[in-house]
Amino acid sequence: MAQQHLDPTDPSLAGPVTGDALAGYLRAQATEFLRALRQHRESGGTATAGAVGAEEPVDAARALRRSVRRISASLHTFRPLLDADWSESLRPELAWLSGTLGMEHAYESRLERLLLALHRLSGAVFPTQADRVTPPPSAPDRGNLTVGAAKAGALLDRQLTLARTRAHSTALQALGSSRFHAVADSIAVLASEVPLTQKATTTDLLPYATAAQDRLQDAATALPLVTAGHPYNAEALIHGLSPDPSPHPQDAPWHQVRLLLRLHRYAQEVLEGAACADVRLLTAGQALDRHRDASEAAAAAASAARTPRIAPATAYALGVLHADQRHEVEAARFAFQQCWQKETVRM
Amino acid sequence: MAQQHLDPTDPSLAGPVTGDALAGYLRAQATEFLRALRQHRESGGTATAGAVGAEEPVDAARALRRSVRRISASLHTFRPLLDADWSESLRPELAWLSGTLGMEHAYESRLERLLLALHRLSGAVFPTQADRVTPPPSAPDRGNLTVGAAKAGALLDRQLTLARTRAHSTALQALGSSRFHAVADSIAVLASEVPLTQKATTTDLLPYATAAQDRLQDAATALPLVTAGHPYNAEALIHGLSPDPSPHPQDAPWHQVRLLLRLHRYAQEVLEGAACADVRLLTAGQALDRHRDASEAAAAAASAARTPRIAPATAYALGVLHADQRHEVEAARFAFQQCWQKETVRM
Repeated sequence: MAQQHLDPTDPSLAGPVTGDALAGYLRAQATEFLRALRQHRESGGTATAGAVGAEEPVDAARALRRSVRRISASLHTFRPLLDADWSESLRPELAWLSGTLGMEHAYESRLERLLLALHRLSGAVFPTQADRVTPPPSAPDRGNLTVGAAKAGALLDRQLTLARTRAHSTALQALGSSRFHAVADSIAVLASEVPLTQKATTTDLLPYATAAQDRLQDAATALPLVTAGHPYNAEALIHGLSPDPSPHPQDAPWHQVRLLLRLHRYAQEVLEGAACADVRLLTAGQALDRHRDASEAAAAAASAARTPRIAPATAYALGVLHADQRHEVEAARFAFQQCWQKETVRM
Repeated sequence: MAQQHLDPTDPSLAGPVTGDALAGYLRAQATEFLRALRQHRESGGTATAGAVGAEEPVDAARALRRSVRRISASLHTFRPLLDADWSESLRPELAWLSGTLGMEHAYESRLERLLLALHRLSGAVFPTQADRVTPPPSAPDRGNLTVGAAKAGALLDRQLTLARTRAHSTALQALGSSRFHAVADSIAVLASEVPLTQKATTTDLLPYATAAQDRLQDAATALPLVTAGHPYNAEALIHGLSPDPSPHPQDAPWHQVRLLLRLHRYAQEVLEGAACADVRLLTAGQALDRHRDASEAAAAAASAARTPRIAPATAYALGVLHADQRHEVEAARFAFQQCWQKETVRM
């Protein structure tokens, strides 16, 4: 600390980062949104994700969501620096758009995750982390799916493809709606003119970014990290056979930290630029993404098992699959704990 | 090393441990066997394990198996020091006896393990390691079993209780058989007179004990310990849905190390006395016991799921249970790896 003032790269020498930086960031994200929207429309715009030969719309949809998330996060973190009426009216619209555009991709990657897991559980050889560390033992090729695993895969394929198709239609409808055009118009205005408050251009952004970081820190500290740091604590599969069909309540605080981590990361982008992304923060975020994905995949397997008139072998495979994904949940918590421990030391 | 000769407690100063120590150990174990057998007969001897109000037969049966295992292991490790004909004829009989007496207890503890897991998976609160580290979150009591979990429990109870009852009858028959009386007579002779070879009383036991340790070391080194040391490597559940109903081939080397560890431990007892039991060796052995128990429990759940005409909910619960026990297998490997790493540094 005593030497800090000698460091010529110390950002504190350059004066505080103010609302001007926020305006620049929001303009850039709005421009990014408009570019993605144009790309989406030029490429036909009939697909929002995943259709064969439709790489561009996938990228465009992802870019749309990417900028929407960042604008929405900045409106939240730096709320007092922005025109309140404008901000309050835009934020729910951005949340709606982000949610609507994300569903199709979510169902698609959930199905992919579950089918990959079914193959792995059937002994089909996929390159896993463990395989990379030591060569797999010369096991006989048990690669064919059992009847149960095959039927479970077909059932999940049917259910999640249906959900994905519906999400696709919903997204297409959304992109053609007047509600969407109103959001797009707002963002078009934002690309040239950011409605800052009068004092914003001279206000230091740091306290707001620090507050976002503190909220993350508090929420992460409240997580059961001691348990998560003990491998194989068997915590995530508690309630695995619970009669309550609601989502695992134990997952909610982790999902919350995932959102707070994102807010913190985007606030850092505003202050320091996107280039200086913190690798450990990204890794922690990826662990929480994996946590969310595995949690939802486990719920999808459990939900498929409640389909009437399925064969016992199908139900058995879905049970194994559910437990496998809940252990992925636990593994993701462990990975986050390991990462966060280092992160906290550094903070 | 240079100071070792200054150490007055250095066992090398007392001269080598010879066949006399082996004879003393075998006499003690044989005496222990006869004591347990007498206790077993005095307590009625109708139960070999687990019956209500029959604590003594349980202890007696355990003591019988305990001494049989040690005699059998010593015959194996120090084979060249013992009369070959006698040794070769007694060893298969001891293996038969040990196996026969152990089955009832194995089925009993397998059922207990599976029912405990079903309750844990249903969210019924049991004190787990995690609970001890942090208090459980104020979760609503989801303690009641689902229909599927209850049915799975009833099915396992039926199947494993039947197996246990059969094992009980087999053990009772064995204890009344002429084959058993021949073994008991051999051990009675052993309690007073150990058939050592001529040179045995002057032969150093250490090379034989070291060879047993080397066999353990080699087998443990050949285990996939690098993978096992990565928590959540998802290795144990590979083939979890495999069409091949045979036991997991990946478990066999671990079972083998479990046996070699026991041989090493008993050889140490012969050389250094039972009192100086190595805590880390015991811990490693417990991890491998847990590995074996979880592996067999997982197989029992998978086997129960192949019962014809079970409900899908039952099959689902058995699938979750199977995966849970396979993760116990993986957790036990991790525990062994952690323990073995320290052990190897010390060796």
